[in-house]
Amino acid sequence: MEHREQTLAAIEPAVPDPAKELPLNVTSIPKQLLPTDVLSITETSPENLIQKLASGNLSSTAVTKAFLQRAGLASKLTNCVTEFLPDRALARAKYLDDYLATHGRPMGLLHGLPISVKEHLSMKGLDINAGFVSWVGRIAPDDALILKLLRNAGALFYVRTTEPQALMHLETDNNIYGVTVNPYNTGLTSGGSSGGEGALIGMRGSCLGIGTDIGGSIRSPAANNGLFGLRPTTYRLPVGGWSAAMLGSEQIIPVIGPLSTSLDGVKVFMKTLIDQQPWLYEPSLVSMPWKETSSASLLRKGSDGKRKLRVGILADDGVVKPHPPILRGINTLVTKLREHPDIELVEFPPYKHEEAWRIISSLYFADGAAEEREAINASGEPWRPLTDFIITDNPNVKNLSISEVWGLTQDREGYKAAYNQHWNSINTGLPGPETKAEVQVEAVAEMDKMVDVILTPTGPGCAPPHDCARYWGYTAQWNLLDYPCLVFPTGLQAGGDDMAEEGYTPRNEQDKYNYELYKPETYVDAPISLQLVGRRFEDEKLIEALEMMTEVAGMPFNDAKTKL
Amino acid sequence: MEHREQTLAAIEPAVPDPAKELPLNVTSIPKQLLPTDVLSITETSPENLIQKLASGNLSSTAVTKAFLQRAGLASKLTNCVTEFLPDRALARAKYLDDYLATHGRPMGLLHGLPISVKEHLSMKGLDINAGFVSWVGRIAPDDALILKLLRNAGALFYVRTTEPQALMHLETDNNIYGVTVNPYNTGLTSGGSSGGEGALIGMRGSCLGIGTDIGGSIRSPAANNGLFGLRPTTYRLPVGGWSAAMLGSEQIIPVIGPLSTSLDGVKVFMKTLIDQQPWLYEPSLVSMPWKETSSASLLRKGSDGKRKLRVGILADDGVVKPHPPILRGINTLVTKLREHPDIELVEFPPYKHEEAWRIISSLYFADGAAEEREAINASGEPWRPLTDFIITDNPNVKNLSISEVWGLTQDREGYKAAYNQHWNSINTGLPGPETKAEVQVEAVAEMDKMVDVILTPTGPGCAPPHDCARYWGYTAQWNLLDYPCLVFPTGLQAGGDDMAEEGYTPRNEQDKYNYELYKPETYVDAPISLQLVGRRFEDEKLIEALEMMTEVAGMPFNDAKTKL
Repeated sequence: MEHREQTLAAIEPAVPDPAKELPLNVTSIPKQLLPTDVLSITETSPENLIQKLASGNLSSTAVTKAFLQRAGLASKLTNCVTEFLPDRALARAKYLDDYLATHGRPMGLLHGLPISVKEHLSMKGLDINAGFVSWVGRIAPDDALILKLLRNAGALFYVRTTEPQALMHLETDNNIYGVTVNPYNTGLTSGGSSGGEGALIGMRGSCLGIGTDIGGSIRSPAANNGLFGLRPTTYRLPVGGWSAAMLGSEQIIPVIGPLSTSLDGVKVFMKTLIDQQPWLYEPSLVSMPWKETSSASLLRKGSDGKRKLRVGILADDGVVKPHPPILRGINTLVTKLREHPDIELVEFPPYKHEEAWRIISSLYFADGAAEEREAINASGEPWRPLTDFIITDNPNVKNLSISEVWGLTQDREGYKAAYNQHWNSINTGLPGPETKAEVQVEAVAEMDKMVDVILTPTGPGCAPPHDCARYWGYTAQWNLLDYPCLVFPTGLQAGGDDMAEEGYTPRNEQDKYNYELYKPETYVDAPISLQLVGRRFEDEKLIEALEMMTEVAGMPFNDAKTKL
Repeated sequence: MEHREQTLAAIEPAVPDPAKELPLNVTSIPKQLLPTDVLSITETSPENLIQKLASGNLSSTAVTKAFLQRAGLASKLTNCVTEFLPDRALARAKYLDDYLATHGRPMGLLHGLPISVKEHLSMKGLDINAGFVSWVGRIAPDDALILKLLRNAGALFYVRTTEPQALMHLETDNNIYGVTVNPYNTGLTSGGSSGGEGALIGMRGSCLGIGTDIGGSIRSPAANNGLFGLRPTTYRLPVGGWSAAMLGSEQIIPVIGPLSTSLDGVKVFMKTLIDQQPWLYEPSLVSMPWKETSSASLLRKGSDGKRKLRVGILADDGVVKPHPPILRGINTLVTKLREHPDIELVEFPPYKHEEAWRIISSLYFADGAAEEREAINASGEPWRPLTDFIITDNPNVKNLSISEVWGLTQDREGYKAAYNQHWNSINTGLPGPETKAEVQVEAVAEMDKMVDVILTPTGPGCAPPHDCARYWGYTAQWNLLDYPCLVFPTGLQAGGDDMAEEGYTPRNEQDKYNYELYKPETYVDAPISLQLVGRRFEDEKLIEALEMMTEVAGMPFNDAKTKL
């Protein structure tokens, strides 16, 4: 805490103090308290900032100062930052400004751009505590590999963001910094575990940040704060140099990825990193180049000679029914897409999503969460409610034997194969997993009929109230399958218009919990976000599909109650 | 055993019986006992056979009959086959011949080609015992995925080959079929665990076969029998549908790959499979197309304007010094390569190969080999000597806790990162792992100076005598690193010319064992093979490099004592 106060105080010009009495939606406060030029810079998209920085229209120093000031205010309003780095960020900004002046060209694709970073990604000489009180004071010996690569491309780092205890909540709450709240409605969670990034970028205290995801930790904060967020396929971006419990565990692979105010921000982040061939430094990565749109192109000639995008619609996972605002979001988008001749919509039924949760929640903590227990109990800090939820109250958390892990790994592979067969079968006539038919290897011939991407919720509702993010199914499903996922805002927001479904009979305890959670007035102003899911290593295709859908449907939709 | 005798007896024309008294080198026996047309077909390279089959110059029926007969003789001489499949192979051959006649085109790249298959790869309705007596009678419910894909491309399967108890020897010896011997010198091992493939293809009873490899099991038999063999990068070829202990274990990933009489056989095998996009059926695979030579090209402009191949020479791993014939093989090739202006040779020092063995041998049997013990002890069969070697006598085999596995996995990743840094540092001036300098991310700029491939032995000697294959370092090293490896014959053979080094002081117990094993007369006629190692996912480059080296050096070298 001390750290944060000191570094916040070092920001110049000083960060204004917000009023003591604030509305639930604090996204408009910066407009009241910050100068016009700061607002203008911080509300520019990353792709436009990059252009202006590269051409010298904006200096990195000016951009960094603007984001530092707005990040300071964002943190005062939502508690999203663990540490500000004005000295090193401004020194780096000056270096980059001089570089451009001297060389007449930018250092790289991200020249001069300030990027925000989740706390557990190592920065040399700074704390890395991963949300554990007992780990406070651990000092990173080196920078995380991803930061080195981003810096090589001209980026700089100016702020470090909050994360929950043990990094395993879809919420951001720890005993070091307290709770990070949602800027659209401070009664709701910013999501987690990259919830500091979510709130900060939601407040436009950053335009591009780095999160990590093993069950939804990039996507929940992106969705809750109306942002774009990508959970890439595993082994495409380097994860070397982060701090967390259970390092060495491989049954469910965590990934790193971007959150941004724009889709282009996501794209430039991926391209910048992959173009540097990160597999030269982290040999576990797959040496797969970033495919430019032209070569990744998913648009195919349909039978009528037109090129079509085939979108699978998975509105409800069959386990927990999404709240009315989410279903409205899907319906609104589907209605727009349906009108367009270049897009074909196909129902994509869920396939045993409850089984996916059994497997993944059994494999998350194969040591019975011994490392987490030790890290928490070493300081005597209290267990946060959602740490209890995912560890103590999770019947699948057991101290497994090697043999049990192998069995669950086979379950995982079997489920992945079945889901893959399920995908192949939709719209093609190929046998699905339920037919128990032998796998046929004629799918190549049917590829032209297959679904390209799945449109699905990011969660069973918009950002839930604090301590209520207790259903991971809509995100963890895809971690188990290792499908890349792209979260995007529809532009819609929850509010009084979406009445609860009356007389609904819940399917199970989880569904009951979620159903009872919904009251329209709880969710006022919460962004309605959705998720696009692709097949493994089709990260580029996912982005291309969303670009096309955005254009075709005219997103963002505009019923927003509060706009920045 | 009964199976084999029955199916052998069903081959027509009948397989001749060899004389009771035979020379140690039995590779010339087929010339004495088989008709000319059978010899001619079976000594044709796979790429030429494919051409003749596709054009109708040879029928699949004739080719299949020829290989069945020669495989029968090969098995009588070396004990390499577990089961012959004349009925289903000839029915399939007839189908393919009819297909060509009817459609006027081949079914696929491998039209009509008989392929041999290691026993533990499932064939529907047939035994899969993985070398355990207690597993005899287990019936495969479906074909392995790789067989389906090969069949799609027009291949057929006619013979199943031996493997050792537990699949974990560099030798082929089990209590079901006994010992498979080396056709060049029956006092030596054919290698393992794909030693049935090695001996069979070495005898030209097959021109292309399928093996599996977690520590050298494709490469040891390829090397011992003078063949080409590829251990591909993991997750490029489908492994679904095999039988083995420890399914679900992921710390060291086993792979599947080809053994062949020609390099083109290896290449067409890889291309045929990957062109079918196997990731559509086995979602753990990486969706990386097979890169044709033109795009995989490793040839680069040197400073003199010429394109050069840079070959790292790692003749001795620093743990166990190779026997004189192996060093002669490397020296002969290096001498030829050195003369050529398009090739640059660079010394590639080993980096802690003993540490690699500690890690991999600790991770092979993370359950303390409980599954193997149970599978062996269930029948009361005796433990084979090399099963004892790798399990009972291996101090690193322990029943590990989850936490210990995670620790070893971190050791593995740390070692991989260090070795990668080592590779980057050679010939470039970049800091190596020993400097303890921080990893720098400027390697991209130095890529033009980096080593392309490593030339190294496949083992510490040629094929050793039975029960003596007790050093895995030259192969398992690359399994740990997951580097693709290509074994090739030099054309040279061991014999009386390579004197033992006198007065040598062994470095350690393993080195002493290997040193004392060498007597020139023991190894007469054993093929001298070498190994080319590439970086992850550079399987194509490896093949291209060997093509170039073969041409430049004029391989195979011709001092062979015995030629087919």
